[in-house]
Amino acid sequence: MAVYTEVDDDDLARFVGDYGLGRLLACKGIAEGVENTNYMIDTDKGRYILTLYEKRVAEKDLPFFLGLMDHLAARGLNCPLPVRKPDGAMLGRLAGRPAAIITFLEGVSHKHPKPVHCHAVGRALAEMHAAAADFSLTRANALGLAGWRPLFDRFAAEADTIEPGLHADIATELSILERAWPHDLPRGVIHADLFDDNVFFIGDELSGLIDFYFACNDALAYDIAVCLNAWCFDASFRFDIAKGRALLAGYQSVRTLTPAEREALPLLARGAALRFLLTRAYDWINTPPGALVARKSPAEYLARLRAHRAVTDARQYGLA
Amino acid sequence: MAVYTEVDDDDLARFVGDYGLGRLLACKGIAEGVENTNYMIDTDKGRYILTLYEKRVAEKDLPFFLGLMDHLAARGLNCPLPVRKPDGAMLGRLAGRPAAIITFLEGVSHKHPKPVHCHAVGRALAEMHAAAADFSLTRANALGLAGWRPLFDRFAAEADTIEPGLHADIATELSILERAWPHDLPRGVIHADLFDDNVFFIGDELSGLIDFYFACNDALAYDIAVCLNAWCFDASFRFDIAKGRALLAGYQSVRTLTPAEREALPLLARGAALRFLLTRAYDWINTPPGALVARKSPAEYLARLRAHRAVTDARQYGLA
Repeated sequence: MAVYTEVDDDDLARFVGDYGLGRLLACKGIAEGVENTNYMIDTDKGRYILTLYEKRVAEKDLPFFLGLMDHLAARGLNCPLPVRKPDGAMLGRLAGRPAAIITFLEGVSHKHPKPVHCHAVGRALAEMHAAAADFSLTRANALGLAGWRPLFDRFAAEADTIEPGLHADIATELSILERAWPHDLPRGVIHADLFDDNVFFIGDELSGLIDFYFACNDALAYDIAVCLNAWCFDASFRFDIAKGRALLAGYQSVRTLTPAEREALPLLARGAALRFLLTRAYDWINTPPGALVARKSPAEYLARLRAHRAVTDARQYGLA
Repeated sequence: MAVYTEVDDDDLARFVGDYGLGRLLACKGIAEGVENTNYMIDTDKGRYILTLYEKRVAEKDLPFFLGLMDHLAARGLNCPLPVRKPDGAMLGRLAGRPAAIITFLEGVSHKHPKPVHCHAVGRALAEMHAAAADFSLTRANALGLAGWRPLFDRFAAEADTIEPGLHADIATELSILERAWPHDLPRGVIHADLFDDNVFFIGDELSGLIDFYFACNDALAYDIAVCLNAWCFDASFRFDIAKGRALLAGYQSVRTLTPAEREALPLLARGAALRFLLTRAYDWINTPPGALVARKSPAEYLARLRAHRAVTDARQYGLA
């Protein structure tokens, strides 16, 4: 959550002009996302988010991300719509970085979601999966099963500095998941990072999804597994079945899970917990303690992972 | 430029409700100012800035700051207006901190101002001085002459780590200023921090002044001296007389400087340069290198200070 890149005001006015958005009326660096620099801008034409893509986002992936938002918005999903220049291009350059302008979405995120919010999230996730079904571009999941072991290798030697025994715990889990991971589940474009700060509400009504910068092609049910981790645990990291039931019912109000997906869900949930455990552990070890970026605790995901290990049937998550 | 305090969404909705602003439609942490946490919020009633006052702002000073904005806005100055609760109170508490909501001001700051902008700034500064003339509260300038030596003492031992000879340079300057500082100039409420990021423009037109959290009672001409430092140097820290002429003409289009103020201006400008040199040097030494807060170079103000030492007559700044 930081503004990594300061933008020159003349350059900014020119950039906004290139998109045909008229006069710049306001510009605020905002704390949104951790990967990129974001400015909220107002122009004669309305309100927008200007994003400068920092080095953690690969430039070659930008046509996928922007194209996906364009595609989803065109199918009626409430998500930001990339603004096009008169020549049709969505991507530009500003301050030496790839940059784009997307429409501003109203709403606030709920840090303490209730079941009603989880139901809305499940439903919106399924709607996103459906809306993306005919999107033509593809992107491999860099943080999917195949990416976990290489990521672990980058901090394995220091893993036990976070918690004694963490190295062995992750190594064992990785071996189990690599052996048992299902490869024939229904696939499609997944959001892959649908956490509370990426879902907006006005009151209890879901107003939109944002931040598609982890989106990729993978098992659709894996996206549900990410959401079970993100939305359905309480403050003590215990699974809250009322939230699980609501999220899964919301999803299934749009698309019913296949028997193979039902069976795989506990394992997928372990995988999703491991994925966030790995990135958080890596960031924990590699973030200087003085930095103003809040370090997010890996322990939360170790607790989730352990909870999932006790699940033998998706009905324990509240699946109808 | 950071969001130091995360606000719970339920607490935020309640806080906004206490001010009678209706439903919360959006909330973004914004990178504005370095002292406080700021959120831009949208509600049914409009757009606002929510500020949580962090520990560098003394709570006892808040009635002065908020009262001043209220006073200035009532006199037609374009500045944020603090929102009052139904009982008239401007100040509340949120996330354990004093907090207030002020109106959102349109406009963008110019990092590379032209003389036309400097003229507008000079004029707005004089208008602020005039509008504040009958403001009843007072606040001593904690970063005025009397505060400089104690501040220097806090990092004097390490001063030469920034630049060899800096310790002696500051010590000599302090002695000169303490001896020669004028104490009988016209006084009033000054902004004391009118830098480019605190002045908004739409196109070339000044749309407002923000960030009154250094405002205090001091010599009015000292505020002009701050602006000469802030607005009238080029990228190589050389004084730009075209900008100085414009800024001073803008100011004098509202209020003509007295002979004593004209005579004192070069010394006041040295004092203002020293004031920012001192706080920047202190922050430079006390900011961990890994922190995401950009460290601002003290050297820029050493260069300005040296430029002012060569000035013997305010006409060298472009004063008519």
